[in-house]
Amino acid sequence: MDDRIGVKDQVNGSPKWYVGEVNEGLVSRHTPQHEQAERRFTDLPLSSVQNRIQTLAISLAKSILSGNGFSFNVPSRAATNQLYVPELDRIVLKDKSSVRPYANVSTVRKTTITTRILSLIHQLSLKSIHVTKRDLFYTDVKLFQDQTQSDAVLDDVSCILGCTRSSLNVVAAEKGVVVGRLVFSDNGDMIDCTKMGIGGKAIPPNIDRVGDMSSDALFILLVEKDAAYMRLAEDRFYNRFPCIIVTAKGQPDVATRLFLRKMKMELKLPVLALVDSDPYGLKILSVYGCGSKNMSYDSANLTTPDIKWLGIRPSDLDKYKIPEQCRLPMTEQDIKTGKDLLEEDFVKKNPGWVEELNLMVKSKQKAEIQALSTFGFQYLSEVYLPLKLQQQDWL
Amino acid sequence: MDDRIGVKDQVNGSPKWYVGEVNEGLVSRHTPQHEQAERRFTDLPLSSVQNRIQTLAISLAKSILSGNGFSFNVPSRAATNQLYVPELDRIVLKDKSSVRPYANVSTVRKTTITTRILSLIHQLSLKSIHVTKRDLFYTDVKLFQDQTQSDAVLDDVSCILGCTRSSLNVVAAEKGVVVGRLVFSDNGDMIDCTKMGIGGKAIPPNIDRVGDMSSDALFILLVEKDAAYMRLAEDRFYNRFPCIIVTAKGQPDVATRLFLRKMKMELKLPVLALVDSDPYGLKILSVYGCGSKNMSYDSANLTTPDIKWLGIRPSDLDKYKIPEQCRLPMTEQDIKTGKDLLEEDFVKKNPGWVEELNLMVKSKQKAEIQALSTFGFQYLSEVYLPLKLQQQDWL
Repeated sequence: MDDRIGVKDQVNGSPKWYVGEVNEGLVSRHTPQHEQAERRFTDLPLSSVQNRIQTLAISLAKSILSGNGFSFNVPSRAATNQLYVPELDRIVLKDKSSVRPYANVSTVRKTTITTRILSLIHQLSLKSIHVTKRDLFYTDVKLFQDQTQSDAVLDDVSCILGCTRSSLNVVAAEKGVVVGRLVFSDNGDMIDCTKMGIGGKAIPPNIDRVGDMSSDALFILLVEKDAAYMRLAEDRFYNRFPCIIVTAKGQPDVATRLFLRKMKMELKLPVLALVDSDPYGLKILSVYGCGSKNMSYDSANLTTPDIKWLGIRPSDLDKYKIPEQCRLPMTEQDIKTGKDLLEEDFVKKNPGWVEELNLMVKSKQKAEIQALSTFGFQYLSEVYLPLKLQQQDWL
Repeated sequence: MDDRIGVKDQVNGSPKWYVGEVNEGLVSRHTPQHEQAERRFTDLPLSSVQNRIQTLAISLAKSILSGNGFSFNVPSRAATNQLYVPELDRIVLKDKSSVRPYANVSTVRKTTITTRILSLIHQLSLKSIHVTKRDLFYTDVKLFQDQTQSDAVLDDVSCILGCTRSSLNVVAAEKGVVVGRLVFSDNGDMIDCTKMGIGGKAIPPNIDRVGDMSSDALFILLVEKDAAYMRLAEDRFYNRFPCIIVTAKGQPDVATRLFLRKMKMELKLPVLALVDSDPYGLKILSVYGCGSKNMSYDSANLTTPDIKWLGIRPSDLDKYKIPEQCRLPMTEQDIKTGKDLLEEDFVKKNPGWVEELNLMVKSKQKAEIQALSTFGFQYLSEVYLPLKLQQQDWL
């Protein structure tokens, strides 16, 4: 088990990739065309988090005893320290960091908060329980003053320890559900997702208690919207096309992203996405696929590589003869978002996506998944998806 | 099976209560002190919905053939037609209704939409599938123009047919979860909620597919917030105090309200609520308890009578020595909402609640459930709730 404190890695003189361990064969350790260092944060077992905090505390104590006071070395999470890496298909952090000394009037408060959060995380790791950010805030309202302060330092602590936030046992609210050909354990209980009715199984907030995944599915169907999920769950679509159906009901939350990644990695299944045909649908796809900017330090663990865009794609609107009145005009903002997406690396690297997005922006039309209801309530599950899958029509 | 069209009941001359069937022994059929008629809408099996639509269609056809054209008689859902009934502890509709003729330029559009929605609901009942309001809208965008129009007429159709919206197989998105000592069937799958890990079982959107409830719990613990739910689920609180733990993660959604009511009715268990100590927490309690105003026509089926306020209560703040810094000052708006609540009948009928709410408004302090984390992350599950339950400290 590697219990070094991650922050020490950044002392390296020459910039380099920290991708040795899990690089999926995409890049070599030294990629000359990118003169940037990437910080990589991995999921750690609780015992490692504990050890890293203890090691850090001892080094701080030594520094104090030797008369040097103490300070934290905190990796920067600012936009200027973020980078999209095409080979990894993710947003990552570069190697800038700042010193946070205790003996400085401008940083003493933040240093105190950092120390307090480290101590609270240490307690969590000893007890092996999970809490939310809100719980954390309430343990010392007097010090933290408001939650944005404890939240920000919590992210700093992830970076200092070089591990993901979920490794710290601080979890976010879950809202995703899963149904279909998947068996997994949630906190020791075996869950068979073919026997979860229409409601499905709520995705657990704490990914480290999820394990023993097995499946006879051929693919994972990632659905943007609740309504489409319900249609497919009620029709038990996964029995006709062996699959696992998962949705975060809109904007992807951290728990669902972790769960999707874990499924993809452990089951080695392709992920096909069913989203609205609008810039927002593509944005959601990108969050699953290559991360959101404010959690880029954690991107390696939150993102699912190689998601395929199944539908609803702009070219589907004519192909499936979606009537004019079921298409919606794009607003100015939509068109701007669409054009911005065309500049994003994660879109550019996929010529098929560029073509579709160009078509969307040109036609100025968007459509929701539910627009298919115009041909009958079960058109989605009985016609559209079967056709798409048989024709392997994804990008 | 009673397949009369509910709307016919309103032709009665003298005002009266329509509470004969399921009045829980609270009021007699004629309550002289309330000179109002209450409309009561019940859950109907699909076959009855089908029959009611067919009967209605036949009567309309007859009216047309006899040269009288056709019109719908639509119960009013306006605020002036709403009434809080203390004996029922619910908001209900009074007996006002309006005629919606086809042969009138001001109502022809709405009459057409009503007819179309009736025909779509009839299709759903034949196929025995569930859809969302959004699906319904997309089946005829040209006619409905925007979703608010089809949504409004859908509620009218519920009232015309005299049944709940969920009887029409049009369901809302679910977001609630349940865990603990409950076994039930979701679309034919038996679910054991003691074996649902931390994530819990997602509450199904369609209550009519939920059945076979059984439990050895002593009470239902209704939790406002996701974070508190997670703490209790992770600690498997239901194994120390046999209970069922349910949350809608904030504002109650229709699916969770239906599910809670069904549990309460079938299992005959007391419901204890754990909400924030602020006016909003009490409002949430009231939505579960006596309905929200815009769905008052459906209140009998959505509300759970006799919910007890377990905590966090304003008097708990001093009793459990919540430190000053974990209490939040109430805003002007909070105080106004608190004072408004003091005028609400559902608060007034419970002297204990009035006392607590007066204390809240007087002290101008509020607190979240998570404020208990100040004494340790597990204070809620290991100290506060056990004490509360042992002392039977609920109102």
